[in-house]
Amino acid sequence: MNTLIKNVSALLPDGEVKQGDIAIEGNLIKSVGSVAEDFKPDKVIDGSGKFAVPGFVNAHTHASMTLLRSHADDMALMEWLQDKIWPVEDKMTEDDLYWGAMLAAVEMIRSGTTAFADMYGPYVDGIARATIDSGLRGILARGIVAVAPGAYEKLEDSVRLYKTYHGAENGRITVMLSPHALYTCPPEFIKALADKAKALGAEVHIHMSETEGEVKDCLKNYGKRPFAHVESTGLFENGTLAAHCVHLDDEDIGIIKKYNIRVAHNPGSNLKLASGIAPVQRLLDEGICVGLGTDGASSNNNLDMLEEVRLAALIGKVQTMDPQAVPAFSAIQMGTEFGARAVGLKDVGRLEAGCKADLVLYSTEGPEWHPRYNLVSLLAYSANSGSVDTVLVDGKLLMEKKQLLTIDEEKVFFEVDRCAKHLMND
Amino acid sequence: MNTLIKNVSALLPDGEVKQGDIAIEGNLIKSVGSVAEDFKPDKVIDGSGKFAVPGFVNAHTHASMTLLRSHADDMALMEWLQDKIWPVEDKMTEDDLYWGAMLAAVEMIRSGTTAFADMYGPYVDGIARATIDSGLRGILARGIVAVAPGAYEKLEDSVRLYKTYHGAENGRITVMLSPHALYTCPPEFIKALADKAKALGAEVHIHMSETEGEVKDCLKNYGKRPFAHVESTGLFENGTLAAHCVHLDDEDIGIIKKYNIRVAHNPGSNLKLASGIAPVQRLLDEGICVGLGTDGASSNNNLDMLEEVRLAALIGKVQTMDPQAVPAFSAIQMGTEFGARAVGLKDVGRLEAGCKADLVLYSTEGPEWHPRYNLVSLLAYSANSGSVDTVLVDGKLLMEKKQLLTIDEEKVFFEVDRCAKHLMND
Repeated sequence: MNTLIKNVSALLPDGEVKQGDIAIEGNLIKSVGSVAEDFKPDKVIDGSGKFAVPGFVNAHTHASMTLLRSHADDMALMEWLQDKIWPVEDKMTEDDLYWGAMLAAVEMIRSGTTAFADMYGPYVDGIARATIDSGLRGILARGIVAVAPGAYEKLEDSVRLYKTYHGAENGRITVMLSPHALYTCPPEFIKALADKAKALGAEVHIHMSETEGEVKDCLKNYGKRPFAHVESTGLFENGTLAAHCVHLDDEDIGIIKKYNIRVAHNPGSNLKLASGIAPVQRLLDEGICVGLGTDGASSNNNLDMLEEVRLAALIGKVQTMDPQAVPAFSAIQMGTEFGARAVGLKDVGRLEAGCKADLVLYSTEGPEWHPRYNLVSLLAYSANSGSVDTVLVDGKLLMEKKQLLTIDEEKVFFEVDRCAKHLMND
Repeated sequence: MNTLIKNVSALLPDGEVKQGDIAIEGNLIKSVGSVAEDFKPDKVIDGSGKFAVPGFVNAHTHASMTLLRSHADDMALMEWLQDKIWPVEDKMTEDDLYWGAMLAAVEMIRSGTTAFADMYGPYVDGIARATIDSGLRGILARGIVAVAPGAYEKLEDSVRLYKTYHGAENGRITVMLSPHALYTCPPEFIKALADKAKALGAEVHIHMSETEGEVKDCLKNYGKRPFAHVESTGLFENGTLAAHCVHLDDEDIGIIKKYNIRVAHNPGSNLKLASGIAPVQRLLDEGICVGLGTDGASSNNNLDMLEEVRLAALIGKVQTMDPQAVPAFSAIQMGTEFGARAVGLKDVGRLEAGCKADLVLYSTEGPEWHPRYNLVSLLAYSANSGSVDTVLVDGKLLMEKKQLLTIDEEKVFFEVDRCAKHLMND
């Protein structure tokens, strides 16, 4: 399938905006700007008045937690988890996880996200099925809370998931191994997981240094800060996606650089749970790869990556008290190219020949897109996801002119309401 | 004109959501919930699947600065003002201010704002004309930079504006007097303005304590912090809307309480310009009236009050490191009822009998509105302005099913592009 997007404003990897055409051959971008005369498209999309941007990569989420959106907010963390979240999660079936992930998929496509790094469980097969059905790019992981029963069976299941889904759907699905966090996984378990990951060649996805309390408890329990503690398990030798990284000192940053750990910054969740503000400009200055994530929809409360781009730029400035910190294009890069690198994707997140055709067309007709001095600034600081018009992943149209093409949205809402009723009432 | 909104979910002033009908008689809400049998509507709106909320009150903006949106970002404040903003503002004509305010009106209506407190100039007649034409509720003020030439002529013009427009359009337009800030107005000018305001019975709108530098300079120049300094001019005796109030100590808060000064909190602008985070939960705890504002679109970069509601809730938590600070409904109240009080409007900002019929219907059909455990949480933390469906001000429909009824949007965009060209190129 060849697709030609004509006469579009395209955001190039260097931040420049180029007016021209985009040719897509199969699942790859063939050219941006001018198109070879002999290119024969099966489908032509009129890009006039549209801004073409790499699809957002949500570098840290728990997709099926959409089912808990608006169930409980504005609470202290432990009360929220113990009284409101965990009791409902205990009731979730594979069917729930599938429909929760499908609701997430609808929301992600409609808000311009083309790939997501998920950490959830126990029924990751349901999430994988939603990824297959929706057409999104998924980096899936079963998050293991090893202090709960059956940790090593869950690790075996993670190995099964890796063998079943890693590279599936022509590479559209990849799989990571995931110890949930150092405070839910004893070091001997993290070590066992690290060994499995090494044997498989799998990368890992873990929550790190989200709260001040986590750092203090780690120091108390293990005599080391979180990064030094987890380093001692060997986990970081496998290629690591570390979510949050809010509370860091120089030693932590040294370890992040030593192992080329990639950071998933979650500004909305970190603010809402009052975890703090990660030192993002410092991380960028140190050459560390920082992507953006929404975290789960029960702590955010949506999967809207454009909001995270804007928040990252805004709080990055106040965190440093420097209005030049985390400028618009850096924030967009974190949401796209850097996010793709963070979750281990090659050739994703850039509009250039040879990259995967994961891209979004924004309609620039609304008042918030006028005047149009600078489309990058307008996207980062003014637009909202209501202007996402058309979405392609792996060269395939998932949404065109706001019409979803792979998902029956009304059915998803119906099934989600059914799941919500059983979770709240059973 | 009588309007009946049938079968809607309505947000009541106590935060509860009631399912029922809303009757509007002329410019006032007649009832919420059940409707008298003898109520004869001229117009019936189907409210099923809609969430009715008081329209947002933008408590601090510079509407015509939409013309500068995306012209310059991510710069240090003084360089930004001196090199990018002021030279262009110097070229602005009344025609520019009119079309800039009309673009703002399109954006405000489309994002659910029904009233705005403006501070700008010099051609406030153009902004008043846009307010009249758009149907929005406007609280207008000519912001006076008294260190520039002609300060006292501008003050006389402000008196003329007050006499011309205060109470115009059946009370839909009100006027304030506005010394821009203590660092752009010598104390003798602020005193002269305070005397004029007293003679007229006018309230005042001023920038206060936006940056740490402003506080330091005030201490250096006048030996007092900003609130004590301005108190000595008599300005606060007239009823005051104070924008920003980021850097406050106990003495400042004491003065705010003493004069019942109302605060316009501008979270987006304060973050983007790296001004800091205002102590909003503290102000609310002290019983101070706090509304929300977007500030101008050249420093925000939009007029989307739902973003400010969300930001206020999010940064209110991290400012206190308390996830229970600034909960969802408090943030919505700041955007609606408290904002109305802040800008001096009586009987605005609440869906109850006897209040002005300024209200918004959100479509709750999108994925970000599922599941629907709590509509207040969904509005504050998940939805975006793309779901604003229908807007009424003073009982009159300004938008129905996303169609603007008072403004020719395409003409506005055309004229704004023309204005932008002349401002950038002449």
